[in-house]
Amino acid sequence: MKISQYFLPTLKEDPVEAQIVSHRLLLRAGMIQQSSAGIYSWLPLGLRVLKKIEQIVREEQEAIGAIEVLMPTIQSADLWYESKRYDDYGQEMLRIKDRHERQMLYGPTNEELITDIFRRTVKSYKQVPLNLFHIQWKFRDEIRPRFGVMRGREFLMKDGYTFDLDFESAKKSYDLVYQSYLSTFKRMGLKALAVRADSGAIGGNLSHEFQILAKTGESQIYYDAKIDEVENDIDVLKSLYAATDELHDPDNCLVPAERLKVTRGIEVGHIFYFGTKYSEPMNAFVTNHDGKNVPLEMGSYGIGVSRLVGAIVEASHDDNGIVWPEAVAPFQVGLLNLKVGHVECDTMCNEIYNKLKEMGVDCLYDDSKESPGVKFSRMDLIGLPHQVVIGPKMVKENKLEYKNRATGEKAAMNIEALFKMLSKIK
Amino acid sequence: MKISQYFLPTLKEDPVEAQIVSHRLLLRAGMIQQSSAGIYSWLPLGLRVLKKIEQIVREEQEAIGAIEVLMPTIQSADLWYESKRYDDYGQEMLRIKDRHERQMLYGPTNEELITDIFRRTVKSYKQVPLNLFHIQWKFRDEIRPRFGVMRGREFLMKDGYTFDLDFESAKKSYDLVYQSYLSTFKRMGLKALAVRADSGAIGGNLSHEFQILAKTGESQIYYDAKIDEVENDIDVLKSLYAATDELHDPDNCLVPAERLKVTRGIEVGHIFYFGTKYSEPMNAFVTNHDGKNVPLEMGSYGIGVSRLVGAIVEASHDDNGIVWPEAVAPFQVGLLNLKVGHVECDTMCNEIYNKLKEMGVDCLYDDSKESPGVKFSRMDLIGLPHQVVIGPKMVKENKLEYKNRATGEKAAMNIEALFKMLSKIK
Repeated sequence: MKISQYFLPTLKEDPVEAQIVSHRLLLRAGMIQQSSAGIYSWLPLGLRVLKKIEQIVREEQEAIGAIEVLMPTIQSADLWYESKRYDDYGQEMLRIKDRHERQMLYGPTNEELITDIFRRTVKSYKQVPLNLFHIQWKFRDEIRPRFGVMRGREFLMKDGYTFDLDFESAKKSYDLVYQSYLSTFKRMGLKALAVRADSGAIGGNLSHEFQILAKTGESQIYYDAKIDEVENDIDVLKSLYAATDELHDPDNCLVPAERLKVTRGIEVGHIFYFGTKYSEPMNAFVTNHDGKNVPLEMGSYGIGVSRLVGAIVEASHDDNGIVWPEAVAPFQVGLLNLKVGHVECDTMCNEIYNKLKEMGVDCLYDDSKESPGVKFSRMDLIGLPHQVVIGPKMVKENKLEYKNRATGEKAAMNIEALFKMLSKIK
Repeated sequence: MKISQYFLPTLKEDPVEAQIVSHRLLLRAGMIQQSSAGIYSWLPLGLRVLKKIEQIVREEQEAIGAIEVLMPTIQSADLWYESKRYDDYGQEMLRIKDRHERQMLYGPTNEELITDIFRRTVKSYKQVPLNLFHIQWKFRDEIRPRFGVMRGREFLMKDGYTFDLDFESAKKSYDLVYQSYLSTFKRMGLKALAVRADSGAIGGNLSHEFQILAKTGESQIYYDAKIDEVENDIDVLKSLYAATDELHDPDNCLVPAERLKVTRGIEVGHIFYFGTKYSEPMNAFVTNHDGKNVPLEMGSYGIGVSRLVGAIVEASHDDNGIVWPEAVAPFQVGLLNLKVGHVECDTMCNEIYNKLKEMGVDCLYDDSKESPGVKFSRMDLIGLPHQVVIGPKMVKENKLEYKNRATGEKAAMNIEALFKMLSKIK
């Protein structure tokens, strides 16, 4: 994509309303724009990141056999009367009356609706276990929305639901999703910790939060340093101590002091096992092997897709701007032409731009007429992992400058060396 | 995908609520499920079609240089007071009060919001022309929602908006989108006609509807038979007569009777040029070449993405079920194992299934234990373009049966011939 044909409205000044760094940087980088309190439009560059995150989340769910559906945003209140959550949910639920005065709501979560789909279609134990997920916009009418897309009112969430015949099977389903969440965050270049959690409004008796580590995180986390050494073995991981400050009790924590690490985190996922909490009142039963009708054992599993855009920026930025991890970067390469109109510079840039397109590497080409200073700052601000700089001096020696955004390392090289290096990125 | 691991709740009986064939078939094929009046959940098979259509629409917009953004579903009423459309829109607009009693609404369309994004970021003629589009859920509170996803209340729409400095440029933008719509519907295997239309609630003075031809279509269309001979030359196309019955005036129609064709159609797209209708009241101005502030010339362009799922079924079905055009089929191939558990049948099916996966051809493998009759009817009902049948008799001769869903043609062939044939499909 050429900047001259793109829509990338970066801001020169820090927006006054942004209290945290991710909010400030996403606004300044022209990735999001607030349309009303806690509600954002995704501008082209931000939308690319959102979609990359969404796709990683989708692939990791499909890898464990979860099947994608799509439920609507607007639900009838009737289902929530059945589960008896309509009144519990409080003012965070956006309640709506349609033109026929029917009570509707903008789904804050989907346990009721998925249970309804299930009970209308599945009748036999032969059709379970079943893991259904969707990626859809939700609405929670926060009293004071803030922190940009980290705590917006309208937000994109992946929510998944498992249906099992008995506790043993439900436990396996829970563990599968647990593991898939660790893989999901790892693919995004993040370090995630699973901590025991309260079940809150979803209910149930087993729950874990997934926190990604970020200095600016909202929660304080205490955890056993051994976790850092374990690779994805969830039976081991679950036996090791990790708790947010709300649940951490220094007097009863059994981890030796020298092994207890303290860090800060941002919640990006939450999983729940809640047995028959919804299936019993909503009558989601199947016949079991003995022909007996039994209620399903259920779990629900959420990842904050739009929240992750902010959380990743909190975890990965520096004084000059965002530092996108490779897997979620809006473009992999930023190409800077320091002198547009200079024949050799234009020629080399076009050659690189076309070759990268051929290689399937997404490149944002700054072909604007702005000053080199403006171009350097903008490219650092938007945080593409690889920068390629073409200027009139180096081009004479058939050279370009490569800069790695994360490390800041620079190297002069020729065009062949560049292609060789970039052919290795995903 | 194996049916034994999929979620495909087909119905045996015709649902009583479905008045038209697409609604009936989409429900019976387990592609959608109604959650409340005019609001649907997309089950796995239906979601695959929806996404294929969405992706074709996206690619054709990107091909003309349109840039994708994503605006939220919930908007502040304030913007609609500015454009003075808040009261005009009537009861079809879903009006919402948030917890602070602020007037919000579920966007039925996005002229106001996109104009707001534009005016806050674009200040100079150098940044136009600009064509921004998004693909997002909309809500129109129809008094009597019906016809399934053809006239739902919550529906997925691609809406695009162009911003130009003057009429000449706006006209070019309009024509570009016009042409892209013809390509879009053609890629989906549909024949579309552009007819002159009223501008309705969007306003403006130039507008075309895109109708796809279907015997069961809601509108009657009169058109000059010459249109059938013209390939995408829009200057010629626009000069030829085409009108829906509302606008058709037999007494003043200049097409000779022998050239006037009558057919039925379903509206799937609508484009509008409306000049400064929104930019003037909402103050979306840029400085022109002379340093003078001028309001932008705008157009808006919609494609009913979820509506197309129904419209395509109306245009392409037979007595046995849906006949998906290749480009939007949920899977390209349906593989039927007539005797699961029979070693040779299982082996050949697995070989075909694995090889198709390798070739990148999406295959739905019916590995269920149901009777051949159930399998044949289900596969016809869900309408995958290519059927491959493996039974115990033919497998002994190392043969399989191939059936083309659209033509009904069948052929016995060996596995090599099958792969050769399927390697040619997209």
